[in-house]
Amino acid sequence: MISHMEQAELYVFIVDLHALTSVHDRQRLAQGTIEAAADFLALGLDPDKCIFWVQSDVPEVCELTWVLSTIAPMGLLERCHSYKDKVAKGISPSHGLFSYPVLMAADILLYQAQQVPVGKDQKQHLEVARDLAQKFNNEFGETFVVPEPAIDENTATVPGLDGQKMSKSYDNTIPIFLEGKDLKKRIMAIQTDATPVEEPKNPDTCNLFQIFRLFAPPSRLAQVRDLYVNGGAAYGYLKLELLELISDYFAAARERKKELLADPAEVRRIMQKGAEKARAKAVVTLDLVRDRVGLRY
Amino acid sequence: MISHMEQAELYVFIVDLHALTSVHDRQRLAQGTIEAAADFLALGLDPDKCIFWVQSDVPEVCELTWVLSTIAPMGLLERCHSYKDKVAKGISPSHGLFSYPVLMAADILLYQAQQVPVGKDQKQHLEVARDLAQKFNNEFGETFVVPEPAIDENTATVPGLDGQKMSKSYDNTIPIFLEGKDLKKRIMAIQTDATPVEEPKNPDTCNLFQIFRLFAPPSRLAQVRDLYVNGGAAYGYLKLELLELISDYFAAARERKKELLADPAEVRRIMQKGAEKARAKAVVTLDLVRDRVGLRY
Repeated sequence: MISHMEQAELYVFIVDLHALTSVHDRQRLAQGTIEAAADFLALGLDPDKCIFWVQSDVPEVCELTWVLSTIAPMGLLERCHSYKDKVAKGISPSHGLFSYPVLMAADILLYQAQQVPVGKDQKQHLEVARDLAQKFNNEFGETFVVPEPAIDENTATVPGLDGQKMSKSYDNTIPIFLEGKDLKKRIMAIQTDATPVEEPKNPDTCNLFQIFRLFAPPSRLAQVRDLYVNGGAAYGYLKLELLELISDYFAAARERKKELLADPAEVRRIMQKGAEKARAKAVVTLDLVRDRVGLRY
Repeated sequence: MISHMEQAELYVFIVDLHALTSVHDRQRLAQGTIEAAADFLALGLDPDKCIFWVQSDVPEVCELTWVLSTIAPMGLLERCHSYKDKVAKGISPSHGLFSYPVLMAADILLYQAQQVPVGKDQKQHLEVARDLAQKFNNEFGETFVVPEPAIDENTATVPGLDGQKMSKSYDNTIPIFLEGKDLKKRIMAIQTDATPVEEPKNPDTCNLFQIFRLFAPPSRLAQVRDLYVNGGAAYGYLKLELLELISDYFAAARERKKELLADPAEVRRIMQKGAEKARAKAVVTLDLVRDRVGLRY
């Protein structure tokens, strides 16, 4: 994301309207929004170098969602895996969950996005956005940029405590902003095997090593690899070392986040300034859309 | 509607966003909107005595639609007859058609409507609005007025050319603003039986008489009833008399509509003034809703 910030006109937003499909708790949604904003800012997203806002601060996206709804075939949405998976898991679905990809398409098309960085799980939803853009352009005349997926080939999968992909759904994460005892508890919980310290181990199949290598400087990493291969790698000590590495690595961001959360009005001000920039783009597209479909009379 | 205007705070709007579910033609939608506005104004709706606007001029309704979507169970919408009927007729449904009742609920709840005049075909959609209001109030705290259906017991069913209820779907209407040859053609097409002039006829089963009685003054109506009962009612002559009655009855409205359509900027101005009044109400509700669900952070 940071590299996108330098190389392109980057749009980043906190999807509170989408979050409403799963969070029905005023305090949790409001607090989650401000924390998410603080997370991005603390980690280096520069609001002067990109457009960074909270989704619901640009309500034009809801109007575009309705317009896109009227051209979105039911079948297109019924085929979306993400919705089908949730229903298969026994979730009693709301209409918002079903409409999720239409709002997402509006998020993309409203800003005439050319490239959308997506993970595997969101690829189908981007397809929906592309379909709707093309359909709209065909029916009403050239209006939307048809967005392309941007898949970053260099993205590494970070392993979680259990060696699976790190994911909230698996409850195997090491949260970036954790510290002290809580952080220690998580790191000590990284799963390792029962091979004794002095015996050789394979670093490439050990998820402790896989996490360790993300934070250790090259020289130290080489030493630890030797300990794995030749015997002498003590999981407990390596975990304590990892604790320190992670703690140091995110120290500045943690401080910055604390400062931000201590002054939520400042976070809101930053986000609202971002929303103004986003809105200036949004109204241009929406005016064109209204004109194309005849909502201007 | 005129009586509601005198007795209550009346909200009337032209549903151009809903129309988008069936009209994908910029010119037709825009022209239809302005004509619908002119129709209401010409027939006596006084924009100073009610709140009269074009739906899309208060885009807040789209944001409320999204919020309501996130509490609307899919099952509730899947059970809606109006949608099921359209699918059964072979229409390939859009998501907008499916979401129609959610936008309608937003239309009602955004203005905290207490009473909603509905015909039989819209009763289920009003039920959806009531369900969503109650569900929202339960989950997030008292927010919405739960609207009641207002069924006007005095509403007469106007028969069409063929004696069925007058309806565009049956193509049996006598359009209010028709005149000259076109109006004559419609009225001459009123279906009657083949009983000769001099024979007695039953006025209560004759749809020409049923339409005639809506326009004739009482004294003339009594005469014509006598002609039916005792013989001497000539359908052709009665139709020409009806033509004159209808033509006179709507003459002023027809003139007024012509004036309005000759100055579409003035119609737009009236509607935008109405939208300002509607919006003043809408933002109060929407602010409360945002607060309740946590879209204020």
